[in-house]
Amino acid sequence: MNSWANAGMDLHIELPRGIGVKAALLQGLRNSIDSGVLTPGTRLPPSRSLAVDLGVSRNTVADCYTELANAGWLITRQGSGTVVAPRADADAVSNAQSPSKSPEQELPRPALSFIPGSPDVSSFPRAQWISSARRSLTSAPNDAFSATDPRGRIELRTALSSYLGRTRGVRTDPEHIVICASSGHGLTLIARVLQQTVAVDAYGLHLHRNLLAAEGIRTVPILVDEFGTCTEQLASTQAKVALLTPTHQFPLGGPLIPSRRRTALEWASDSGGIVIEDDYDGEFRYDRKPVGALQAIAPQHVVYLGTVSKTLSPAIRIGWMVLPDRLIEPVLALKGPYERWVSATEQLTLADFINSGRFDAHIRKMRTSYRRRRDQLVGTLEHRLPEVRIAGISAGLHAVIQLPPGTEGAILSAAEGLGLELVGMSTFRHPDSPSTGNDGIVVGYSTPAPSRYSDALERLCTAMESVL
Amino acid sequence: MNSWANAGMDLHIELPRGIGVKAALLQGLRNSIDSGVLTPGTRLPPSRSLAVDLGVSRNTVADCYTELANAGWLITRQGSGTVVAPRADADAVSNAQSPSKSPEQELPRPALSFIPGSPDVSSFPRAQWISSARRSLTSAPNDAFSATDPRGRIELRTALSSYLGRTRGVRTDPEHIVICASSGHGLTLIARVLQQTVAVDAYGLHLHRNLLAAEGIRTVPILVDEFGTCTEQLASTQAKVALLTPTHQFPLGGPLIPSRRRTALEWASDSGGIVIEDDYDGEFRYDRKPVGALQAIAPQHVVYLGTVSKTLSPAIRIGWMVLPDRLIEPVLALKGPYERWVSATEQLTLADFINSGRFDAHIRKMRTSYRRRRDQLVGTLEHRLPEVRIAGISAGLHAVIQLPPGTEGAILSAAEGLGLELVGMSTFRHPDSPSTGNDGIVVGYSTPAPSRYSDALERLCTAMESVL
Repeated sequence: MNSWANAGMDLHIELPRGIGVKAALLQGLRNSIDSGVLTPGTRLPPSRSLAVDLGVSRNTVADCYTELANAGWLITRQGSGTVVAPRADADAVSNAQSPSKSPEQELPRPALSFIPGSPDVSSFPRAQWISSARRSLTSAPNDAFSATDPRGRIELRTALSSYLGRTRGVRTDPEHIVICASSGHGLTLIARVLQQTVAVDAYGLHLHRNLLAAEGIRTVPILVDEFGTCTEQLASTQAKVALLTPTHQFPLGGPLIPSRRRTALEWASDSGGIVIEDDYDGEFRYDRKPVGALQAIAPQHVVYLGTVSKTLSPAIRIGWMVLPDRLIEPVLALKGPYERWVSATEQLTLADFINSGRFDAHIRKMRTSYRRRRDQLVGTLEHRLPEVRIAGISAGLHAVIQLPPGTEGAILSAAEGLGLELVGMSTFRHPDSPSTGNDGIVVGYSTPAPSRYSDALERLCTAMESVL
Repeated sequence: MNSWANAGMDLHIELPRGIGVKAALLQGLRNSIDSGVLTPGTRLPPSRSLAVDLGVSRNTVADCYTELANAGWLITRQGSGTVVAPRADADAVSNAQSPSKSPEQELPRPALSFIPGSPDVSSFPRAQWISSARRSLTSAPNDAFSATDPRGRIELRTALSSYLGRTRGVRTDPEHIVICASSGHGLTLIARVLQQTVAVDAYGLHLHRNLLAAEGIRTVPILVDEFGTCTEQLASTQAKVALLTPTHQFPLGGPLIPSRRRTALEWASDSGGIVIEDDYDGEFRYDRKPVGALQAIAPQHVVYLGTVSKTLSPAIRIGWMVLPDRLIEPVLALKGPYERWVSATEQLTLADFINSGRFDAHIRKMRTSYRRRRDQLVGTLEHRLPEVRIAGISAGLHAVIQLPPGTEGAILSAAEGLGLELVGMSTFRHPDSPSTGNDGIVVGYSTPAPSRYSDALERLCTAMESVL
């Protein structure tokens, strides 16, 4: 601790009345420790600081600390101050923290996972992120620490406007961008504004369907195939809103072909509808054929959603919406007069991270890494299980292993027995979908740590071999 | 930029078909600039990097850059790369950013403000916060960058459990704490779980009433006086939930007296009700008489809400709920399987900020600063307007100037004319409240920057003198 931090600490203590100062302080401290308010390991203020706060002499406080240390309530160590002692009868303190629970034990999880949706978190660019935090917070205006514009910081919206145009072909400006906590948060806001049935892929992200259901929004499934969503079906639904993943259909993995893109936008234009474009992993393509955002063609009919959860980390809660003119005011009205969700400090950090070129550099580095993982997955399966087909390998952070009907559940069980967490196509099937028999495993190959990737692949092959 | 960041940048470009590579690249770049997708100032990738990405020779890209620079589309500067040139006919680009809009112009606001709710943002401890970010992110486990526990990071919940016990007398442990984006977010979650009418102060925070109304929750007002909320009225309401500010009634400023605390908890205990304790500024008391959290007396009947928005900054969106046993699971079920709102990176930073003693040090420094402001406010008013009374001066970041009936609106208008933003008691009055005639100004004396505080006080006195 530096000297500034040593200037004092707060301690709230109820002093019993009608007894002397020292007796009251002794009793008050004992009561706080006994009731579990002061938990073992809690550091107490220096005696000088507490004495000033309570308006008593420093010796009184120091004497109390010594007495309580002698009695086993406190521990005083030279240089590290006075802390509350561990309890011998820990069970007696109903509210005390259980020391046996470590963070790892709190969320029980299998040793390895191919569940899609997470980047390789061991590659998070810590030093570069910290550097952007330092630079952006040092140079930020004081206003950055006030309650923030619900659209988000202008610095981040400006950086995103340029970045999304350059890398994804999005046509926008900072006035049409609204920052949100995640693409799910953006979807929720749009759903509340539109209050309309939403057409979704018959196989698509169940988390987004659940978010819509939680808002009381009905979803209707439309078929998907290897050319993307069958957008020609949109006209026959009652929906005025469609949630699509045109760059990389989730989970099947194909881009929406040009004719179906045109069909979707004609439907929106003719019906006054809205396409919500979830560009969840558009940065990750492994061939040279560009797939730009659908938004670029019809900015007034498309809501574009993006997030850092695949490019950086799902632990950083920043997403963005690029909105048509008519939706800006309703979305902002729903968000309220202030930004309630996304810290300005992290928005400024991300703006610097983008503007400095660090974001591009990180994505390009990870693209190389994921392409290598993809190649290893494909190569291993070709060697070990030459009869299975893999779809959706040209982009993104996942691929689909297509399975014979009726085998998906058995393979998931076998993998679980091997300590490998997998998810099957059935998880992503809309409950009202007419299509069935699409057994498959959606392999999120970005998820395992690099050192454990080969092991995870081995378990995957073993699980499949035990069933097929 | 460092060499790593120079390794490359992404550029999405639609290349027209049926023409040569160079012609296609020239046309593609012109189209992107012309349509506003590539906005002025956007940096393009180094020619070497773009050539590799497109699978063309480096000379082809370099030649295109040179031709477009000669034609005025691009600007090439030694050492700073190639950027998109400003547009002479800026109006022609419908989607381009309007360069005349600065961040300050986006949220028009009067030059000075006494609106309560914000700390002195010019005193945000930037260096200490950055230092905690660096230390916590450097040492964090990789798991910190995965999708996060909806309760929040264990590091922060552990730090808060100890801190809240030590400074506010709260009886809890990390298992009973749920991190949220703000106290308003916490209130929303609780309201959705309980789905009950909420008793609120006849004068209280309108933002919280609005959040409850947005959830379809009815609020019923109960009277407040200088001894806090008239909790003896709770039993005659139909409400099973009460939203209180027991440490420092907002906006009147008094602590809830002991007998009324007992009444509130007896009501909760007898009726199975819940008291939501909004401890919005409990850290700021300027006398030595401690006012502990109500939660300490009845942890199973009180939901305790806290936030960093007054102690650090409303731009950092972190708050916390301390929950009774029976509410933990319902709140977590509502939050969903992952943390959707609060970045793990900032949670880790705050945990380090607390554990290192920097949070205590900052609060103690600001307490001294705000006490001085309070004294200056009281002294100036005693001198200039000896007939007015000021209430609620022993704690918090605001005070109430009591006014003769019928004068509030005129003083607010006069202040507006002087460039001073004020808010009156009427803003905080529940629309169904029986009490009227409580004219007053709620002065958030923490809001102005230090260098402008005396000027703001002068305008306040001038506005009042012009009416009284």
